[in-house]
Amino acid sequence: MKRILLMASLLAATTALAEEGMWTYDNFPSASVKAKYGFTPTQAWLDKVRVSSARLAGGCSASFVSGTGLVMTNHHCARGCIEQLSTASADYIANGFYARAEGEERQCPAMELNQLEGITDVTATLNDATRGLTGKAYADKLKAEMAKLEKACATADNVRCDVVTLYQGGKYHLYKYKRFQDVRLVMAPEHAIAFFGGDPDNFEYPRYDLDVTFLRAYEDGKPAVTPNHFKWSKHGAKDGELTFISGHPGKTSRGLTVAQLEYHRDVMLPNTLMLLSELRGMVTEFQKRGPEQKRISNNLLFGVENSLKAQKGRREALVDEAFFAQKVAAEQDLRRKVDASPELKAKYGAAWDEIARATEQHNQVRKEVSFVGEGGSFSSTLFAQARTLVRAAAELPKANTERLREFNDANLPALKASLMSPAPIYPELEIARLTFSLTKMREELGADHPFVRKVLGKESPGTLATRVVNGSTLTDPKARKALLDGGAKAIAASKDPMVQLAALVDGDSRAMRKHYEENIEAVIKKASELVAKAKFDVYGTGAYPDATFTLRLSYGQVKGYMEDGKPVAAMTKMGGAYERHTGEDPFRLPDSWVKSKGKLALGTPMNFATTNDIIGGNSGSPVINKDAEIVGLVFDGNIQSLGGEYGYDGTTNRAVSVHSDALIEALDKVYGAKRVLEELRPGSSGTKVGVTPAR
Amino acid sequence: MKRILLMASLLAATTALAEEGMWTYDNFPSASVKAKYGFTPTQAWLDKVRVSSARLAGGCSASFVSGTGLVMTNHHCARGCIEQLSTASADYIANGFYARAEGEERQCPAMELNQLEGITDVTATLNDATRGLTGKAYADKLKAEMAKLEKACATADNVRCDVVTLYQGGKYHLYKYKRFQDVRLVMAPEHAIAFFGGDPDNFEYPRYDLDVTFLRAYEDGKPAVTPNHFKWSKHGAKDGELTFISGHPGKTSRGLTVAQLEYHRDVMLPNTLMLLSELRGMVTEFQKRGPEQKRISNNLLFGVENSLKAQKGRREALVDEAFFAQKVAAEQDLRRKVDASPELKAKYGAAWDEIARATEQHNQVRKEVSFVGEGGSFSSTLFAQARTLVRAAAELPKANTERLREFNDANLPALKASLMSPAPIYPELEIARLTFSLTKMREELGADHPFVRKVLGKESPGTLATRVVNGSTLTDPKARKALLDGGAKAIAASKDPMVQLAALVDGDSRAMRKHYEENIEAVIKKASELVAKAKFDVYGTGAYPDATFTLRLSYGQVKGYMEDGKPVAAMTKMGGAYERHTGEDPFRLPDSWVKSKGKLALGTPMNFATTNDIIGGNSGSPVINKDAEIVGLVFDGNIQSLGGEYGYDGTTNRAVSVHSDALIEALDKVYGAKRVLEELRPGSSGTKVGVTPAR
Repeated sequence: MKRILLMASLLAATTALAEEGMWTYDNFPSASVKAKYGFTPTQAWLDKVRVSSARLAGGCSASFVSGTGLVMTNHHCARGCIEQLSTASADYIANGFYARAEGEERQCPAMELNQLEGITDVTATLNDATRGLTGKAYADKLKAEMAKLEKACATADNVRCDVVTLYQGGKYHLYKYKRFQDVRLVMAPEHAIAFFGGDPDNFEYPRYDLDVTFLRAYEDGKPAVTPNHFKWSKHGAKDGELTFISGHPGKTSRGLTVAQLEYHRDVMLPNTLMLLSELRGMVTEFQKRGPEQKRISNNLLFGVENSLKAQKGRREALVDEAFFAQKVAAEQDLRRKVDASPELKAKYGAAWDEIARATEQHNQVRKEVSFVGEGGSFSSTLFAQARTLVRAAAELPKANTERLREFNDANLPALKASLMSPAPIYPELEIARLTFSLTKMREELGADHPFVRKVLGKESPGTLATRVVNGSTLTDPKARKALLDGGAKAIAASKDPMVQLAALVDGDSRAMRKHYEENIEAVIKKASELVAKAKFDVYGTGAYPDATFTLRLSYGQVKGYMEDGKPVAAMTKMGGAYERHTGEDPFRLPDSWVKSKGKLALGTPMNFATTNDIIGGNSGSPVINKDAEIVGLVFDGNIQSLGGEYGYDGTTNRAVSVHSDALIEALDKVYGAKRVLEELRPGSSGTKVGVTPAR
Repeated sequence: MKRILLMASLLAATTALAEEGMWTYDNFPSASVKAKYGFTPTQAWLDKVRVSSARLAGGCSASFVSGTGLVMTNHHCARGCIEQLSTASADYIANGFYARAEGEERQCPAMELNQLEGITDVTATLNDATRGLTGKAYADKLKAEMAKLEKACATADNVRCDVVTLYQGGKYHLYKYKRFQDVRLVMAPEHAIAFFGGDPDNFEYPRYDLDVTFLRAYEDGKPAVTPNHFKWSKHGAKDGELTFISGHPGKTSRGLTVAQLEYHRDVMLPNTLMLLSELRGMVTEFQKRGPEQKRISNNLLFGVENSLKAQKGRREALVDEAFFAQKVAAEQDLRRKVDASPELKAKYGAAWDEIARATEQHNQVRKEVSFVGEGGSFSSTLFAQARTLVRAAAELPKANTERLREFNDANLPALKASLMSPAPIYPELEIARLTFSLTKMREELGADHPFVRKVLGKESPGTLATRVVNGSTLTDPKARKALLDGGAKAIAASKDPMVQLAALVDGDSRAMRKHYEENIEAVIKKASELVAKAKFDVYGTGAYPDATFTLRLSYGQVKGYMEDGKPVAAMTKMGGAYERHTGEDPFRLPDSWVKSKGKLALGTPMNFATTNDIIGGNSGSPVINKDAEIVGLVFDGNIQSLGGEYGYDGTTNRAVSVHSDALIEALDKVYGAKRVLEELRPGSSGTKVGVTPAR
C-alpha cells in the first residue's frame, strides 16, 4: 500500500511540471498548455469559462449549462437538498426527481450558489494594515480589515465578498460573487445509479456512476437569465484529448512546513480517522433501526464514509517514506537558500521554527480546541442553530469589524438563510449524533475535566442529549426567527434547553477559540506569510497556491494508467454497469435502468479518467474541451489521487468524471428528461421546453 | 499528548534499571531487589510463588488463594463465563453472582486454567534441528520439532505443554502446565462496581473498581486440592512497600527492530485502530436495539473498547519522536558493535535488513493475510467453529508433526473443549458481527478481488451473513460433535451453510497462511533469532525477554506519580467511589453498594498504583508482599503505562490494583460472602464454609 509518489516538481517547489496545478484564473500557465497541447487559452476564453462556472457554497462546484439558469452539479453535491425535500412517503433519494414543468421545480431549503464576478488583489492593503503587528494585535487587525473590505464590496444581499488567503498568506484576494439563494431542484436520478457501487467503489476506478443533478438558479422568483454558460459538446471526451476542469478545490496542504505535515501525519489524521470510523459504525447500525431511520441518515453516512476514505488516502501518502523525504528535502533546500542570504535570513529565517513551536502548542491543547472551543462536543444541527442564535444576540449589536468573523455584515445573508431554512431536523438522529459527540467529549477530555462536568453534570451523554433535543422547539424555523429577532433579551429568557446549553458553554467556547486564534493561529498565519514570501523571493511567483475553495482551472488529458502492473483504460462503457449489477445494494441498478437496458447504446462511454489535478470541492466541476464545451462532469478522483492533498503524482493521479455522452443517453432513454435535454442541446430532443414528456 | 518516555535502559538494551522488567522465573534479578529493597527472593520463595500462580488460557492471570482450589482473578477476566451463564432473566453481569454453597458453584462453559509445573530449556534441541535451514524447510522443521517436544511432554489430558519462543527466538522453553478444564464460578460482584467508571475511567487513575471474581478449580468433580496457594496479608499494601506481581503478561514488542516498529506505527496500529473504532460504533449502537441485545453484546463491547484504548496508547508512544529516536539509537549502537567485529558481522550483520525486507513484503500482502488467510473476513463464533470442524476433518488423520499447529495432539484437549462448549451463541449478534467483517473484507480487498467474489457471489454482506447464520445448526454442541466425529465424510455431506462457507474458503485461506508462514514469518523468525543472539553476544544474557503470555515476575513499589505537574496519590479510598457516583452509568454504583454505605469503613484503601512493569494479560495477577501474601489484585495500568508495549518509563508507568483490604471489606459488608472470606482468611469470619450466610 505504500505508493511512491513521484513528484518531480516537489524539490523545486514552484515549477509545476506535467498537469500539476490548481491554477488561479489570474495566473494560468497558458504557455505550458500551448507547449504541450498546441492550444493557448486566451484571456477572453478564461473570462468566459470563469463566469460560466459556479460554486455551491456548501462545498461543491457546478456550472451553468443553459441561458435560463440551468445548473449542472453532482448528485452527491445536491443530495442534502434532495434528502431535505423528501419525506418518508416521497423519497427522492431512492426514486429520483424530475420536474416535468417549471412549476414543479422545488426550492432547496438551504442552498447557496455563487458565480465569480471578479477578483481584486488586496495583499498590499492588508500587509500595510498589519505591518509590525504580532499575536492578538495582528489577528484583530487582519480580521477587522478583512471585514471592512468585504463590507465595502458586498453592496447588496445578492453580492457575496470573501477575502481569501492564498499561498498561506503570501497573497490576499478579494473574491466578489453573485449570490443565488433561490436554487431549485430540476432533475436527479436515483441514488442507486448516482452512487452505483457505493462506498466500496468510491474513489475507485473503473467506475459506472451517473452522479449528476440539475438545479436551476432563480432570481426574483423566475429562472435566472444566464447568458454566460457552457455549451454541450457534440462529441464528448476522447482518449488523449486535452481537458480543462474549472471548479473549486476545497483544500490542499502542499505548502505546509514539515512540522505541520508531521502533525497531520501523526496526530490530526489518525485521530480524525478514528473518530470518523466510530461514527461510521454508529450510523451504519443506526440505519438498521428501520427504513425511515435509514432514509434520514443516508446523507450523514455518505459524508462520513466519503471523508473517511479521503483521509485514509492522505495518511497513507504521508507515511510513505519516499514522499515525506521529498517534502523534507524541499524545505531544506528553501531554508538553505534563505539562510545563505543575510537579508533573506533576517526576514524569513525564523519562520519555520515559529510554525513548529505553534504547532506543538496546538498539539498540547488540541483536545480543548476541538471539544471546548469548536463545538466538537455538540454534533447536532439544533445545537448549531442554538449557538448561532446565542452568539448572534451578542455579536450583532457590535460594530461590524468587532464581531466574530461569521457575523460580519457580508456574511449575514448566508447566516440568515441557514437559520430560516425549512430543512427538516430529525430528533431521533439528533439525539444519536449528540450522544455520540458528548461521549467523545467525555472520553477525550476525561470525566473530570471542568468543561465536561459543566456540560454533563450528573447526566450521562445519552440522558442529556435526549433531554435537550426533545425539549427544544428549534426544529421550527419560526422559533428560531423569534429568538433572532428577540436578541439578547429573548435568549436570556429562553427556556429552550438547547438554547440554555449553548448559552451555558458559550463563555468557555469563546475563550478557547480566542486563545487558539490569538496564540496559535495568528502565529502560524504570520509565519506562514513569511515562508510564502521566502518562496516567492527564492523561486519566483510562477507557482499555484494551495486550494482554498476558490475558483481554479486545471488542465490535463483523458488518460488511463497502470495499477499493480496492469493497464487501467481511461473510459468505461454504460454496458459495464449492467455487468456489475448484482441486484444487491450498492451494486443494484435502479429499476429504471434495468427496464431501459434494451434502449441504451451500451457502448456509450460512461465514466472517464483524466490527468487534471483536482481535489475534494471539485465535485460537480464541468470538464470542458478547448472550445469550452462540456465533455464531462467531475465526480471523483481515483484512490491514487487522495494523496493529492499533499502532492500531485501525474503517473497515477486521476480525476474521474461522468462522460457527457452518458448524461445525454441516460436523460433521453432512461429518464425521458426532454426538458433538460432541450436546454442542454437546443433542438436535439424535438420536444419543447416546458412540455410534459411521457415517462 | 506527546509523552516523552525516559528509558535510561533503552540505549544499552539489556541492563534493566529501576523496576523495569517482566522476568522469567529462571532469570529473576534477586540481587537487584536486594540492592534496592534489602530483600532477596530465594529459589524456594520463587518456586512457591510460581506454583501458587495461575493462568486463564483465554488471556488472563490468576492465583490460588485457598487449599481447596479457590482462584482469584478479575471480573473482566471471567466476564465471558459470567455472561455465558447468564440468561435474559438471570443476568449475573448486572446483578452479580454468589454461590452460597458448593453445590451452587457453576461450571464455566469455556474456561481453562493452567498452573505452571516446570520449565525446560529446549533451545539447543531446536537449534540443532533447524541448523542451516531457511524458509519453508526451516518453518516446517521448527513446527515439527515443537510438536514432537510438546507431545512427548503432554502425557495426559490434564497436562498442557507449550514450546515458547523467548527473546524473539534467542531461546526456546518448554512450559509444562497442569490443566484444569472444570472451573466454576464462585462469586462475582455486579459489573457496575467491577468496572465502575466504565470505558471513560479505563486505564485512568485514580480509580475505584472492585474488579474481582472468585472461581474454583475442580478435579474429578470435586474442588481441587491446592496446597500451593497464596495466603492473605493481615495488612494490605502500604505506600512505598515492595510489591511483586506474578502473572502472564501477554505481549510486548520491546525487542523489535526499527523496521518492525515503523510498521507498527505507520500501518498496523492505525489500521487496527480504525477497525476497532468502527466496530465500537457499531456495537454501541447495536446495544440500543434493546436490553437483551445490550446484555449479549456487553462482553464484546468491553473487549473492543479495552483493546482500542490500549492500542491508542501504543501508537502515541511510537509517534513520540524522542522515544522513537531512542529506539533508533539503540539499534544503531548494536549494529555498530556487530559490524565492528568481523565474526559477529558475518553471523548477524544481515539480519536487520532481512527483517526490513520481510516486513515490507508483509506490508504488500497484509490485507490478503488478514482477510483471506487469517479469517478477518469472518468475525463469527459459528464460523470459527465451522472452520475448526472443516480443518479438523482434514488435519486429524495426518501425523501429529504434519498438522497445522493448533491441531497437534498436545492442543487437542483445548480444541475439543472449545468445540463442545455449551456457551450460548446469539444469532442476532453473529449476523451483525459477520456482516461487519464481510463488509470490511470487501472494503479492504476491493469488490473485484477474486476471494471477495468467491465469498459474496451476488449477495451483499448482510444477506450472506443472515443466510449462513440463520441456516446453521452449529449453535448446538451436539451438531458440532456429530461433525467432529463424522470427519471428512460428514463435512463433505454437510448441508449446513456455515460449514459450506468454511469449506468454500479453506483452500484460499490455507494457501495464504502458508505463504505468510513460509515466506514472511519464517524469514522474520530466523533473522530475529540472529538479532537476539547478537544482543546476547554484545550485551550478555542479563536481560528479560519480551512478554509471551508465559509466567513472569515483576517487582516494584506502591508509589504515586506526577501528572500535568500535579501529584497523583498512590491510593484511593472506598469513600471515593461514593463521591464519584452520579447515578448514571457508568458512574452508577450498584444498589448493594448504595445500601451498604453506612456499614463500610470508607477510609479503607480501594485501588492503588505500583511501579511494577506489567502489560495486558497481567490482569488478575496477585500483588504480593515479601512474605508472598496477597496485598492486592492487578486489574489495570494507568494511561501512561500503555506505551509499555514498546518500553518502560518508571516515572509514570503504573500498575493499578484492587487493594486486598477493599476486597475483604466488600466481601464482608456488601456481599456477606462469608464462605469466600473464610477460605481467604480462615477463622476470620466466624462462619463455617458451606453454611449459607444471611445476605
